[in-house]
Amino acid sequence: MSNYQLKVENIIEEIKKIDAHTVGLQFPEGLKIYATLVARQIEDETGAEVIISGDPSFGACDVSDASMKDVVDLLVHFGHTPLHLEYEVPVLFVEAQFQLDVIPAIKEALNLLENYKIIGLVTTTQHLHILDEAAYFLEKEAKTIIMKEGQGTRKAQVLGCNFSAVEELPVDVFLYVGSGNFHPLGIKLSTNKTVIIADPYRNEARNIDQFADRILKIRFARITKAREAKKFGIIVSSKKGQLRMELAKNLKSMIHKEGKEAYIIFMDHVSPELLIPFMDLDAFLVTACPRIAIDDAQMYKKPLLTPEELLIVLDKKKWEDYKIDEIKYVNGNQ
Amino acid sequence: MSNYQLKVENIIEEIKKIDAHTVGLQFPEGLKIYATLVARQIEDETGAEVIISGDPSFGACDVSDASMKDVVDLLVHFGHTPLHLEYEVPVLFVEAQFQLDVIPAIKEALNLLENYKIIGLVTTTQHLHILDEAAYFLEKEAKTIIMKEGQGTRKAQVLGCNFSAVEELPVDVFLYVGSGNFHPLGIKLSTNKTVIIADPYRNEARNIDQFADRILKIRFARITKAREAKKFGIIVSSKKGQLRMELAKNLKSMIHKEGKEAYIIFMDHVSPELLIPFMDLDAFLVTACPRIAIDDAQMYKKPLLTPEELLIVLDKKKWEDYKIDEIKYVNGNQ
Repeated sequence: MSNYQLKVENIIEEIKKIDAHTVGLQFPEGLKIYATLVARQIEDETGAEVIISGDPSFGACDVSDASMKDVVDLLVHFGHTPLHLEYEVPVLFVEAQFQLDVIPAIKEALNLLENYKIIGLVTTTQHLHILDEAAYFLEKEAKTIIMKEGQGTRKAQVLGCNFSAVEELPVDVFLYVGSGNFHPLGIKLSTNKTVIIADPYRNEARNIDQFADRILKIRFARITKAREAKKFGIIVSSKKGQLRMELAKNLKSMIHKEGKEAYIIFMDHVSPELLIPFMDLDAFLVTACPRIAIDDAQMYKKPLLTPEELLIVLDKKKWEDYKIDEIKYVNGNQ
Repeated sequence: MSNYQLKVENIIEEIKKIDAHTVGLQFPEGLKIYATLVARQIEDETGAEVIISGDPSFGACDVSDASMKDVVDLLVHFGHTPLHLEYEVPVLFVEAQFQLDVIPAIKEALNLLENYKIIGLVTTTQHLHILDEAAYFLEKEAKTIIMKEGQGTRKAQVLGCNFSAVEELPVDVFLYVGSGNFHPLGIKLSTNKTVIIADPYRNEARNIDQFADRILKIRFARITKAREAKKFGIIVSSKKGQLRMELAKNLKSMIHKEGKEAYIIFMDHVSPELLIPFMDLDAFLVTACPRIAIDDAQMYKKPLLTPEELLIVLDKKKWEDYKIDEIKYVNGNQ
């Protein structure tokens, strides 16, 4: 199935084992194109009825167990590792390993790693299976590799909202194996260390610094604009793994104490269109996925801030101590 | 509060009566602009914490009781009358009467009603309170007015998915008081009778025929295109009042018997973007809100059909017997 290992045989085995009659399939956006293929194979080989989730799925934070609880006996969630959450229906997590040779990209990164000895190796779910091979390659190049588990994440794994696997790691530099800029940005902002990206999709390597500078300039502008805000909207997600209501209520009290207004807005998927009716609000705080305020900043007319950024707006924290927002679930608690 | 009666005093009374500490507010799109104003008034006068729902709300079919059940003690749902559904949290329905003189528009309609004696008067939730005044005016013009309750709807009330209040009503013509074309279209397609619209927002009257012709041409084109489809997606909504899973499973069996493929896709909000990854499917059946396939047809690249329309595609029903799709909840059952 393209370059992804979806382990359909294991899924079929599990369905037969628990005698599931109705099976839900939930794919992240990039894997949804395989949905009907997987569904047909499961229906043909087990006789179970398959229900495909069409909702957006960006992480294990939005497993569709609640909406599917009366609909399926088993939910198969692809592409993410489980969080420490209680699910309302049995969930089988299938990591969807991406089959791609990462060594060429790491070779490209060697130049950028020249002056560093101790490397923190980091990646995301779909590449976790390449860590040993990558470490072996780098050790042959006389590097020392350090990796650790995070709070609720695997060894060397970061999520868009959880960088605990890189925190306080005694390394000279981080090597992030994967695509995109958000995760390496988070690593940099969590650790203040140099982060090199080895991108196995493009077989190229780069430093995150330029991107981080650009993002920080945007954040500074948003924070400056939000200092003028008199009315805040505080967005809370109903997605189980993003639901930080207590935090939202604390932020609301904090804003009230400054003599400003604040309103809690509870919603599933956050989008620019859905905030348009709240036209009297001057700025929004996003307690949902930390990526919304950062990655999607340009899509919104009003400033969207993370809870960390509000502290800077209200002069409770210095700009120099800027941190990325994180949601760390450990045993069901943030 | 503009032209809408949101009855905030009644809400405050209810909050005090049941001693609610956390109150959810859910507004349809057109009323969301009043959300913060209502929230502030409630918080100031009761001390309760208000949580505003930011999810889209198109009807009593998508009350956010399930997502808010652990978050609020009371949910206030504006703009719709309750369906016969079990809600997971106490729900107070506030109809949000629109304060507008409807007589000028009805006067405009008199010309179009000239050749008719017995009139079926029909409207939507926000105008139900004007029925008596409208009937009195028309009776003075020597008309006979007939109205009845529907299955799960009030006297003379139609929903976008429920036209039972007009079915088999022995009238010469229908007079629909309200805006938009979808409801009068539904009345026409349910009854095959002439429908005159008195639009109190524009103070004008018109016949629905031209609009109905245009829509039926589009429907015919979609049905024709769907005859070539080999793979169908069957969309089921997770919104409690739109969740027709049994119907979806029946449609799937029906399609299989024709030697074609069908996949059930389960989702909350239906949008063109969310169907893009299912690129191998040739046509979609929408068992969710009947308006999606009809109103939003032009937004989708692939044909979206109602369950009724599938029957025509599969030659189980004649085009001449075209009916609008309806979801009638009576005592919790469709």
